[in-house]
Amino acid sequence: MKPEDRFVERLREALSDRDDVVVGPGDDAAVVRSSAGRLVVTTDTLVENVDFLPGEDPGRLGRRAVSVGLSDLAAMGAWPDFFLLTIGFPESTNEELPLLLARSAARRGEEFGAALVGGDLSRAMEIFLSVTVWGRPCGEVVRRSGARPGDVVFLSGWPGEAAAGLAVARARAGGDRSAGGAGWTPEELSVPDETRLLAAYRDPEPRLPLGRALAREALATAAIDVSDGLGADAGRLARASGVRLVLESESLPISPALAAFAGLAGRDALEMALAGGDDYELLFTTPADRAGRFADPPSEWGASVNRVGRIESGEGAFFEEARGLRAIDDLGFDHFGAAP
Amino acid sequence: MKPEDRFVERLREALSDRDDVVVGPGDDAAVVRSSAGRLVVTTDTLVENVDFLPGEDPGRLGRRAVSVGLSDLAAMGAWPDFFLLTIGFPESTNEELPLLLARSAARRGEEFGAALVGGDLSRAMEIFLSVTVWGRPCGEVVRRSGARPGDVVFLSGWPGEAAAGLAVARARAGGDRSAGGAGWTPEELSVPDETRLLAAYRDPEPRLPLGRALAREALATAAIDVSDGLGADAGRLARASGVRLVLESESLPISPALAAFAGLAGRDALEMALAGGDDYELLFTTPADRAGRFADPPSEWGASVNRVGRIESGEGAFFEEARGLRAIDDLGFDHFGAAP
Repeated sequence: MKPEDRFVERLREALSDRDDVVVGPGDDAAVVRSSAGRLVVTTDTLVENVDFLPGEDPGRLGRRAVSVGLSDLAAMGAWPDFFLLTIGFPESTNEELPLLLARSAARRGEEFGAALVGGDLSRAMEIFLSVTVWGRPCGEVVRRSGARPGDVVFLSGWPGEAAAGLAVARARAGGDRSAGGAGWTPEELSVPDETRLLAAYRDPEPRLPLGRALAREALATAAIDVSDGLGADAGRLARASGVRLVLESESLPISPALAAFAGLAGRDALEMALAGGDDYELLFTTPADRAGRFADPPSEWGASVNRVGRIESGEGAFFEEARGLRAIDDLGFDHFGAAP
Repeated sequence: MKPEDRFVERLREALSDRDDVVVGPGDDAAVVRSSAGRLVVTTDTLVENVDFLPGEDPGRLGRRAVSVGLSDLAAMGAWPDFFLLTIGFPESTNEELPLLLARSAARRGEEFGAALVGGDLSRAMEIFLSVTVWGRPCGEVVRRSGARPGDVVFLSGWPGEAAAGLAVARARAGGDRSAGGAGWTPEELSVPDETRLLAAYRDPEPRLPLGRALAREALATAAIDVSDGLGADAGRLARASGVRLVLESESLPISPALAAFAGLAGRDALEMALAGGDDYELLFTTPADRAGRFADPPSEWGASVNRVGRIESGEGAFFEEARGLRAIDDLGFDHFGAAP
């Protein structure tokens, strides 16, 4: 038996049987039972040295790749059913690495009812993981394009914590220190703060329960998954909706852990919250007369939700400070690696 | 606007509108209309230096990535509806390369009715393309596991031509010559032979019409898409079915172009047919009393079909020559890069 086939057999042992999976991993394609209606499908790829640091624990990495894919479904107000996982890995890697990645991905999917039903393996120069996940809307799908002037802007979670977590992980890996001049060490953070920031980066929580509530109760006019930075993704929502989105500086939630990190590292916490990336939180808009629903979010939503701004007529995404408005569309990460 | 968003806008201009696409590229996920029943889903990734040569024409590459994905659906007896495309590309690459890749992929999908509805972009060390395609079975899905002793084994097309085409492409790119000692140059092939071999490698034809006929007319007990080499994939079909698969040397179709290449390069054409890889042909099994259906395949199947062997009780895949049986399961390509 070829190692690739042995991999599939070993992986299958780790998967639960499900009635809606007709053909799982190991054939030319997966076959699943599907009901009529709308299907919501998304794909996300994590690449070594771009989306994660070399030497990252494979169990964490498989889990994170699935979380990142699920976050996109959350932003659409959909719930996942199935996913595929593609793993690229260097020739020097043995069979255990992709198996650890795939098993941890499968477990993470199962937490939300999403079954791993297939995928692909390939040699590559660096490790990469690509997750394609599909499921069903929990109500009307929530798009980026429905925000209207007068709507209120909400954000789940604590933006910028993941970016701080990445900086801490880099420093722990010796990256920032060897680059020199960082002027701080992660040991100066309290253990709870460091743990919290690392978790925000390494183990994001897909906001599926919140997204489901937004779709079921028709609470959101528009939503986007914040992955490339709050400023950039606010700009995308504004452009898709043909409106201006204004984030208000006094409303932006800055967690004590991020504030502690920023103080230590000589960074501006608000700037990290705006440009950070990897947050995987939901940014969404709500008609003003429904905004009261978020005053005391039910615990089953699984996330804090804060009012962070407003929608006006116009265009672009702006940050409102005491000194006025500042464009933030071009902050954050772009895979072309160059601002226009 | 970020380059990534401009990319999506430019790509969308190249896509046709379809009633069954509710949300196409540019939101957090794609949304499509879907009928009840079975959904067939597969994913395939092509990586530079592994699955294609550096400097490959992006228009050809996008097309090939889609063809390779569609080939898996063909082997299941399914027809595609939609696909996603993920592109990894080095930092040095500008926006035009992924756009050329994506547009050619979209055109190839449209030839078979499959709409490009989304995907992902990422920086990476090398170019890679990952296609996830889904669709509907044209009858009962054809699995690898249904072959029974007494069945006849058929193969579409001409195995080994793609492997010869890769060798020619390498030589044209100067690879084999700089490695030294090849002892032949592609100029020694006739232009039609060279054209045919290069096309077999660069532009495989997904056998969707044949796969549809197999499913609709319930002609196949088992099928597999030959991608890693005839021997390896015959071994997979045999193992999944719990039978022995015997390929008969006198039945294996060797094209005149492959024979010409093998003569020139001092290679064994039969060995190339068995171990070659990248064929994307269908290997399938049929009950003996239905084998007559393949005596004169209708032109709409779009492929030649040859009887190449038989199914017996036992296990493994073998090649039957005058001197006896030889195991061929372990021939061909494995992404772990090491034979067990």
